[in-house]
Amino acid sequence: MSELLTERSGRVAAARKLTRRAGRDAAGAFLAEGRQAVSEALATASGDVREVFATEAAAAAHADLLATSPVPVRRVTEKAAAGLSETVTPQGLVAVCALGDVPAGQLLDAPPSLAVGLAGLADPGNAGTVLRTADACGAGAVVFGAGSADPYGGKAVRSSAGSLFHVDVVRSTPLGPLVAGLQERGVTVLAADGGGETGLDDAAASGLLAGPVLWLFGNEARGVPPELAAAADARVRIPMRGRAESLNLAAAAAICLYTTQLAQ
Amino acid sequence: MSELLTERSGRVAAARKLTRRAGRDAAGAFLAEGRQAVSEALATASGDVREVFATEAAAAAHADLLATSPVPVRRVTEKAAAGLSETVTPQGLVAVCALGDVPAGQLLDAPPSLAVGLAGLADPGNAGTVLRTADACGAGAVVFGAGSADPYGGKAVRSSAGSLFHVDVVRSTPLGPLVAGLQERGVTVLAADGGGETGLDDAAASGLLAGPVLWLFGNEARGVPPELAAAADARVRIPMRGRAESLNLAAAAAICLYTTQLAQ
Repeated sequence: MSELLTERSGRVAAARKLTRRAGRDAAGAFLAEGRQAVSEALATASGDVREVFATEAAAAAHADLLATSPVPVRRVTEKAAAGLSETVTPQGLVAVCALGDVPAGQLLDAPPSLAVGLAGLADPGNAGTVLRTADACGAGAVVFGAGSADPYGGKAVRSSAGSLFHVDVVRSTPLGPLVAGLQERGVTVLAADGGGETGLDDAAASGLLAGPVLWLFGNEARGVPPELAAAADARVRIPMRGRAESLNLAAAAAICLYTTQLAQ
Repeated sequence: MSELLTERSGRVAAARKLTRRAGRDAAGAFLAEGRQAVSEALATASGDVREVFATEAAAAAHADLLATSPVPVRRVTEKAAAGLSETVTPQGLVAVCALGDVPAGQLLDAPPSLAVGLAGLADPGNAGTVLRTADACGAGAVVFGAGSADPYGGKAVRSSAGSLFHVDVVRSTPLGPLVAGLQERGVTVLAADGGGETGLDDAAASGLLAGPVLWLFGNEARGVPPELAAAADARVRIPMRGRAESLNLAAAAAICLYTTQLAQ
C-alpha cells in the first residue's frame, strides 16, 4: 500500500483517460472494475495487469484478493475511485489492464470451431453480453468489426462478466476479407437475419452447424449489412411462434450460439 | 389537434406522474413512447389508449399513424414531451394507455402451453427483454412476481418492443400459490438454476418440455429463491462448454424459452 491518491494525482488522471476509447487506444490499456473483473484479470497471464486502485474500504473488503497482486495496489480516495468508474455505484476497486486483443490473422491461422463476428453492434451492454454468451458456448474468438462498440469500454467490460479475459478478442477489423478467408479454410459463415431464407431449426437438422462456424450479428436496428449477409453461406432466421416482430440482439445471439454448441 | 400544451399544463403534469410506479398504479395507466409502442397500443382493443401526446415535429412525422387514433391527439412542446420520456433522446410521441394486467386466476382457469414467472427480476431492461422473448416463443403469459421490476415502467415498455401488448401480464402476485395451482392443473414448473440437477438438453430429450410449462427465472444476482426452486418439478441448468460462470439472465431465458418452443 502507498499514500492515498486523490483525483488530482497524475496516476489517477492518467487512468481516468482510459474511460474514453481514444485514451485506451493511446495507452494500450483499459479499466476493469469490481471484484469479479479484477479477480479474472489477476488470474490471466502475468503482465496483463499494470496496477490496481482501491479505496480503503475496498482494500479491506478484498484484502485476500489484493494480497495475490503481483503489481502495485494504490490507495485512492472515494472521489478518485468514482472518477474511474462508469457506474452509479462505484465499487472502489479498479485494475489497469493491458489491451489484450489479437490480430485477425490469428483467427485465419487456426480457426476455432465457433467464432462470432459483430458487424456494427452499437450498444456496449450488448457487446459485453454477446461476449459472455460466446464464452459460455465455447466460442474461441469474438471479432468486433469496424464501427462496433468497443469491448474494452466500462459498460462492455462489466456486461462481459469476466469473459473478456477468456475469449480471443479482435477489434476494428473489416469483416469482408475475414469472412472470405475463413470460408477458404472450411469455416461455415452464417448471418443472423430475421428475414433469412434458412430457419435455425433447419440449419441444425441439416448439419450446417456441425463443422467450424462463424456467426455474424449486426447492428441492433439495421441488422447485418446486406453485402456481408450476401457473402455468408446462409442467412439464418430464428423461427418464432408468437407475435413479436423480432428478438433483442443479445437474446437472438444466445439462441444461435447455444444451438450451435449443441450441434458440434 | 388542440392548443400547444407546455410542461406546466395539468394534462402533461398528470401524465408525468405515470413515469413513477406509484403514479401508474394510482391512475391505472402507463406511458408508451415512440412510434412502435404507440402503433401497437392503437392496434389493441379500443379503449386501451386514453390520449396521445405529440410534438409538432412528431405529429408531422407520424401523421399517418395519428390519423387512426380514436382518442384525442394533444400537441405538446418539446420540453413537455421530454418530461414524459425516460430516454436521453425523447421521441416526441407518447400514448397514455390503461394498465392491461390480468388477475392470476385467469392463468389458473386456462393455463397456456408456455408461461413465464419472474421471481425478483430487478432490471427493467431485462423485464422488457424477457417479455419480448416470451412473446416471440409463443408464451401466453408472463407473471411479474412480487418484488420484480414493473413491466409498465418506461425502460421495460421500451425493451419489450410492443410485446407488452401481445402477452397476458400478471403483476405483484406471490408465485408460490400460483406454482402449486398450476402443478395441480398438469403444468410442469421448471426453475432456471445454474446449479440445477437437470441439464436443459436432457430436459428436452426426456420430454419434460413437451406439455404445458411454466418457466421460473429469478433475480439477476441471487437466482430463483430456494423455496420456490424446491417447489418446481425440476431445476434446470444450461450446459456450458466454455469458461463463463453463468449467462446473462435475458440470454439464459432466451435459450430456455426457445428450446421449449421447439419441444412443444
